[in-house]
Amino acid sequence: MPIRATVWGENIHEQEEKAVSDNYPEGMHGQIAKLLREDSNITTSTVTLQDPEHGLTEKKLAETDVLLWWGHAGHKLVADEIVDRVAKRVWEGMGLIVLHSGHESKIFQKLMGESARLNWREAGERERIWVVTPGHPITKGLPAYFELETEEMYGEPFAVPEPLETIFISWFQGGEVFRSGLTYRRGAGNIFYFRPGHETYPTYHDKTVGQVLRNAVNWAYSGEKHPQLGKSQNTPIEKSLEPITERGPKLASHQAATSAK
Amino acid sequence: MPIRATVWGENIHEQEEKAVSDNYPEGMHGQIAKLLREDSNITTSTVTLQDPEHGLTEKKLAETDVLLWWGHAGHKLVADEIVDRVAKRVWEGMGLIVLHSGHESKIFQKLMGESARLNWREAGERERIWVVTPGHPITKGLPAYFELETEEMYGEPFAVPEPLETIFISWFQGGEVFRSGLTYRRGAGNIFYFRPGHETYPTYHDKTVGQVLRNAVNWAYSGEKHPQLGKSQNTPIEKSLEPITERGPKLASHQAATSAK
Amino acid sequence: MPIRATVWGENIHEQEEKAVSDNYPEGMHGQIAKLLREDSNITTSTVTLQDPEHGLTEKKLAETDVLLWWGHAGHKLVADEIVDRVAKRVWEGMGLIVLHSGHESKIFQKLMGESARLNWREAGERERIWVVTPGHPITKGLPAYFELETEEMYGEPFAVPEPLETIFISWFQGGEVFRSGLTYRRGAGNIFYFRPGHETYPTYHDKTVGQVLRNAVNWAYSGEKHPQLGKSQNTPIEKSLEPITERGPKLASHQAATSAK
Amino acid sequence: MPIRATVWGENIHEQEEKAVSDNYPEGMHGQIAKLLREDSNITTSTVTLQDPEHGLTEKKLAETDVLLWWGHAGHKLVADEIVDRVAKRVWEGMGLIVLHSGHESKIFQKLMGESARLNWREAGERERIWVVTPGHPITKGLPAYFELETEEMYGEPFAVPEPLETIFISWFQGGEVFRSGLTYRRGAGNIFYFRPGHETYPTYHDKTVGQVLRNAVNWAYSGEKHPQLGKSQNTPIEKSLEPITERGPKLASHQAATSAK
Repeated sequence: MPIRATVWGENIHEQEEKAVSDNYPEGMHGQIAKLLREDSNITTSTVTLQDPEHGLTEKKLAETDVLLWWGHAGHKLVADEIVDRVAKRVWEGMGLIVLHSGHESKIFQKLMGESARLNWREAGERERIWVVTPGHPITKGLPAYFELETEEMYGEPFAVPEPLETIFISWFQGGEVFRSGLTYRRGAGNIFYFRPGHETYPTYHDKTVGQVLRNAVNWAYSGEKHPQLGKSQNTPIEKSLEPITERGPKLASHQAATSAK
Repeated sequence: MPIRATVWGENIHEQEEKAVSDNYPEGMHGQIAKLLREDSNITTSTVTLQDPEHGLTEKKLAETDVLLWWGHAGHKLVADEIVDRVAKRVWEGMGLIVLHSGHESKIFQKLMGESARLNWREAGERERIWVVTPGHPITKGLPAYFELETEEMYGEPFAVPEPLETIFISWFQGGEVFRSGLTYRRGAGNIFYFRPGHETYPTYHDKTVGQVLRNAVNWAYSGEKHPQLGKSQNTPIEKSLEPITERGPKLASHQAATSAK
Repeated sequence: MPIRATVWGENIHEQEEKAVSDNYPEGMHGQIAKLLREDSNITTSTVTLQDPEHGLTEKKLAETDVLLWWGHAGHKLVADEIVDRVAKRVWEGMGLIVLHSGHESKIFQKLMGESARLNWREAGERERIWVVTPGHPITKGLPAYFELETEEMYGEPFAVPEPLETIFISWFQGGEVFRSGLTYRRGAGNIFYFRPGHETYPTYHDKTVGQVLRNAVNWAYSGEKHPQLGKSQNTPIEKSLEPITERGPKLASHQAATSAK
Repeated sequence: MPIRATVWGENIHEQEEKAVSDNYPEGMHGQIAKLLREDSNITTSTVTLQDPEHGLTEKKLAETDVLLWWGHAGHKLVADEIVDRVAKRVWEGMGLIVLHSGHESKIFQKLMGESARLNWREAGERERIWVVTPGHPITKGLPAYFELETEEMYGEPFAVPEPLETIFISWFQGGEVFRSGLTYRRGAGNIFYFRPGHETYPTYHDKTVGQVLRNAVNWAYSGEKHPQLGKSQNTPIEKSLEPITERGPKLASHQAATSAK
């Protein structure tokens, strides 16, 4: 059964900026989905900020194995309720791939527990992306490094938690470095942050970038659902795995107090 | 200069439950602060949910090196604005020690990016806490294990990110296990989660628990402030560290779009 | 193309101890291979300590995608040269699954950089193994916990590096806990340590144990070869990616000194 | 009580190469020790490859809290027995700081369980070292980045395990990047790898490099000894923490078999 990838696009600059619509006539989400379809094991659909519920209905999320997220200008326009819904689905086991300026999206900040801030410069400078974990599923088939001739610079410190694995590190022409590929798990969900992707540059037309995205979708896919990870559960004394006898003072209000759990 | 520790207590069950006020006549926050003061390098103060701004004013947080957090019944009563303020201060470099039922506090969930759920049982059963990282500052001077004869059970899976280090693992009489001591960093702030501390049991009268808390305060202290970690910054082309020339199409709206950063 | 798993068995107690040969008439390696073959995507072969080069010839290792290792009484009988060969193949990308008493094998100690010591007791006590990472490929399809009614106890502290991920934690009847499933990467090779498997108990007849081993083989497989990870490489000035000019004093002996690299 | 730091110097190129003896007339070890003494909380001594037992006698190691290691041309001249002795002392709790070309020393390879290979170029190019973990004890008081105008290049992939924390990442003029500061723990011992330090360049005359080394010594110090981490221990049934009864077949040879533990 193929992996069901949903590409979420903010779809603002595609409407407002000629440089972007010239670059991505089908929208950035459209172009990203196209890259994914080169893998016959991935089926794709796209949704945008402008769709009802930003396209991220309960039904849509239930049918999504891996969600890709590109946003920039409209982070604040994403409803908190939808952000919470996406987070819950990640905890349950949906994969999430956050792209470029998505680092400051509400969903990424929520899952990281940090500001995810960084230093940046839009100068069309050269970026050279080095593979630091050969043998990782996300770097499968990649060369030792690849270059994007014109990209926006992101520089350290990147305010994110220590990752499970640092996959890529970028060299920038202007003198900065950046951890451009990082993996995390939150609940049962795999998360990959991938740095490149400024909307005025041809990044999502690059073959190696396409390979990374397809690898990442395959890596992030778990195919399992663990809804229990959203909520604490009482394990009653009479069902304890080893025989125990209740002891000590008990909280009178415990029932009420823990009903929030 | 001593470490300034602030103990935040929810202070609800101390008012409402005789079992708790008998156990901790000075409040749980009062008793925790008392344990900390056995280290002459730590000065303490206490604040509670009922104080204006829950006692966590900008001024108070600025004067706090390490914050300890005990809450249970009133997680939802903590204002979101205060939670955001505490998180920002952690990112800046304040240490945070989250105790027991604080695992479902807003601040811990926010910093973890997960539900922090678990399984639980209030039966006064035996807990045996094993040191898994001898040599770590938090386990300094501890025996190979220590026991709490009556404690609430918390069982895996504990829905938190893979920690920097697993410090303690608990064995429970009823058959469960739990990662009872975990370290994290968020921004420049060190975070330690420590499991024991049910309000009806004498946990904060235990000598070894006191030692752990004092060790943890010393470990979490950084003494530095990094306010820049809360916000992205533009690095202008004309100030780039290596000479570069601007290239490629530029986002017309970039100024506006990134003003949110 | 199926995954080629090789099971390495020490094959000593099977020859010398009736309790073990009664339990595993085809040898422990034979029984482990049998469990793996329930996955049609895995092909298996077995080799033992007594084979020429312990069965781990260059050819055999080149044709092995994932190696499983069970040893106990004969760790010191394994030739250092073969240990180095296996390590090199792991760095290159071969998966390695180390079982039970293999924790003190030369190959595991070498890859961990630690003693991998622990506390132990052979008493046929109950072990309850808890899943702490639901959604991980190694825990796919598993229940929240599973029990082995009679097992050897291993207790913390387990002297191994902080893992990439803690997959399982065991509860023991006698009062100990243990991190029973741990993942690592060394070079391009994935490593999984799985605790259960004392030779006098029926552990490798257990259905859930079989599922874990099959999951682990699928997880550890990378299908790539990265021989360059064994050796440093000079990147000559005239081939540098960005134009640079040689500056400063140069080491006269550099050629000779670095030939060891 | 001050921290007792021992600087181990290979002391070969200082004897054989004029460029090096001009640069470090007191030896590299001498200059490194000098940098450390700017912290009044550190006392220093130096030993070299040429000393009996390479200066690393049992007595000397017992009196060392943190060992610094600089080697390059003579890695193979270090006796395996001494390497094992140092590793054992690290597991016990001694801190270890490995410098520059020490990445291919026997002791570092042993503790990493990998080849620690990398790409390199001696061209006196510019290195810019970025702090990626503001607030970490090793980066205390440092600027956002610092530059070494002439350094040897080390490039990724650096074949080491995923670290506890990535502290520094270097940008090189010729187009490469490198994880220049990495932390690990092995047993009870803290390990820090710090990249800069080619012998023909004035790196150990740099003020910021000195600050990093002093910070690292303070961070690596634990002041505890955990000799038990070198050896497995039997926990007899009659002394089990919870009452258990022996069950199942017992290994006749267990006593002999596990005597290797």
